[in-house]
Amino acid sequence: MNYFTVTAGDGRSSARCGVLETGHGIIETPCFMPVGTKATVKGLTPRQLHEEVGAQIILANTYHLFLQPGEQLVGELGGLHAFMGWDGPILTDSGGFQVFSLASLRTLEEEGVTFQSPVDGSRHLLTPERAIEIQEVLGADVIMAFDECTPYPVDYETARRSLRMTARWAERCKTARRRTDNLLFGIVQGSMYPELRRESAELTREIGFDGYALGGLSVGEEKSLMYEMIDMTAPLLPREQPRYLMGVGKPEDIVAAVAAGVDMFDCVLPTRNARNGMYFTWQGPLVIKQARYRTDSLPIDEQCSCYTCQNFSRAYLRHLFRSREILSSVLATIHNLYFYHRLMEKIRMQIKNGTFADFMKNFISNYDIS
Amino acid sequence: MNYFTVTAGDGRSSARCGVLETGHGIIETPCFMPVGTKATVKGLTPRQLHEEVGAQIILANTYHLFLQPGEQLVGELGGLHAFMGWDGPILTDSGGFQVFSLASLRTLEEEGVTFQSPVDGSRHLLTPERAIEIQEVLGADVIMAFDECTPYPVDYETARRSLRMTARWAERCKTARRRTDNLLFGIVQGSMYPELRRESAELTREIGFDGYALGGLSVGEEKSLMYEMIDMTAPLLPREQPRYLMGVGKPEDIVAAVAAGVDMFDCVLPTRNARNGMYFTWQGPLVIKQARYRTDSLPIDEQCSCYTCQNFSRAYLRHLFRSREILSSVLATIHNLYFYHRLMEKIRMQIKNGTFADFMKNFISNYDIS
Repeated sequence: MNYFTVTAGDGRSSARCGVLETGHGIIETPCFMPVGTKATVKGLTPRQLHEEVGAQIILANTYHLFLQPGEQLVGELGGLHAFMGWDGPILTDSGGFQVFSLASLRTLEEEGVTFQSPVDGSRHLLTPERAIEIQEVLGADVIMAFDECTPYPVDYETARRSLRMTARWAERCKTARRRTDNLLFGIVQGSMYPELRRESAELTREIGFDGYALGGLSVGEEKSLMYEMIDMTAPLLPREQPRYLMGVGKPEDIVAAVAAGVDMFDCVLPTRNARNGMYFTWQGPLVIKQARYRTDSLPIDEQCSCYTCQNFSRAYLRHLFRSREILSSVLATIHNLYFYHRLMEKIRMQIKNGTFADFMKNFISNYDIS
Repeated sequence: MNYFTVTAGDGRSSARCGVLETGHGIIETPCFMPVGTKATVKGLTPRQLHEEVGAQIILANTYHLFLQPGEQLVGELGGLHAFMGWDGPILTDSGGFQVFSLASLRTLEEEGVTFQSPVDGSRHLLTPERAIEIQEVLGADVIMAFDECTPYPVDYETARRSLRMTARWAERCKTARRRTDNLLFGIVQGSMYPELRRESAELTREIGFDGYALGGLSVGEEKSLMYEMIDMTAPLLPREQPRYLMGVGKPEDIVAAVAAGVDMFDCVLPTRNARNGMYFTWQGPLVIKQARYRTDSLPIDEQCSCYTCQNFSRAYLRHLFRSREILSSVLATIHNLYFYHRLMEKIRMQIKNGTFADFMKNFISNYDIS
């Protein structure tokens, strides 16, 4: 099955455009996936995701849905697409990242991870087999292998042991797979050690997956170190398959990772920051609670065609935020996701035009990252 | 100016259909006005209000907007319509009801009410003149006279003193009016004393307003007593002008008040209850958190064509409510406001068909009020 086609290259970097085919539609890459943790992108209806944002694919979190309402319920109701009323593609993570974030509440063994539910205190064992089973019951179009997201900082030996276990788990995930209508992605770990990233990439490729993710990044390391890891790891992954940088990131991170040949991104920043009153603009972030916007009749971003910018002033949006109105979160989420999706659209256009390298230079210098 | 036309009567009750013309469009009555307290109907975009709900007119609260962000700011930004991005008609209340609800934080004199802001502790004097000035700066299409919402229960003498002051204030409101592009409504008080309701109606008519409101109802009295007051007061108000029952109510209350000849309604029930997970249906209220909906694949109301009922199951909506997701409030608000607006549409159709009396009988007996 030829589910992924590289349709254009940049010529001057490793950036590329592609088309990813899934059971629920086609995705143009490079793409951004809004995070819909508990089967909802917080505050937006699926209609708004389609019409106001232009979302191609969304991400849902296996861990959260396993705990509440439970994958069986979602399965009985026809799977995640029917459950949440989203007919486009969905990617689910494996739950590993969230389980490992539980720290003291979990114990790790070769078999898997035992953890206690923060919802009701019940104990659960999450294994590679179980992670795949849950994701297949949820019925996502792209599912992820169950990995250990190696903590940072970490010593070389621990990082090596971790990536090797992730590789053994990856093999078990592949074996555990039952459905044929999804894509299974493997995850490359190795912390910030180039040699270990290389080993992890090789082990994961040897098992063979439909796509490859870069995991364990944006976990507290310096930005330059993250870029270094992306730059060295991406070329180790098959050119003819999609590459996914998990949990990244800021607009400038996405542009940099696209240059390294990454195709897919997800991040809570545009949605979470929206709820905190931070708007992304082409001039950098705008914090709406600031007093200087009190009487400001301009839209958030004069260059933006989103519903929020076409209809509301900074003064009104500041009023909504200060009044803790639900609509503040809704309008900011629409704007931020629109911004991220137009960024990806621009990136794709620049790659197709062969002007991505210049675009990147301009973007990095004009976009106020502060 | 012939801004209100009665277009149909029921024949068997005092129910009537009408058309109310405002500077921002025409309203078909009987109508329901969603409450947009702080210049937003909580959780919905103006686009959703238009497209998913079919709202004709909304209500905003003078008191809240006076405190935050202040009417001057709204005025500088082009008035309430521009500020909140709603191009349809808006009615503002006078702020009286909220100020009187402050209890110990306010003192009442002939001049007006002195009160302390719960937002920042500052002291303010709200007078009839000031209430009109604020509303005219906000720029609503229908503005309300500043009245004392008589507390309940209350003795006869206090209720009489109160309604007479409300009448003196009403006169001052009429004199204070400056704009000619809005409609000013007077408010009838008199607590639960028919004789005082009659006196208040006469005093208010004598001053002369563009419309008349029934105030001081649904303040804790028995339902039968409220109906009695509505039934006896409505016929005392001019037939050729709109009648507005403030802050009422439940679906059955609206149907009963329409039968008495009331044209306009507002109430927080559909929006507030939505945020608490209570859905209005043609079979009565549905409380979504109940365990029996855990695996229920049916929509909230199989008879309903709203966005929520067309796309989501009770099980999903229960999951959203239990997960405290913003989308729970959004989808429930869409449904409940849709329900209220379809109820008003049905009422208008039944009046036009001359079948309203039968409809009312059926509705009251089939609609499960419990």
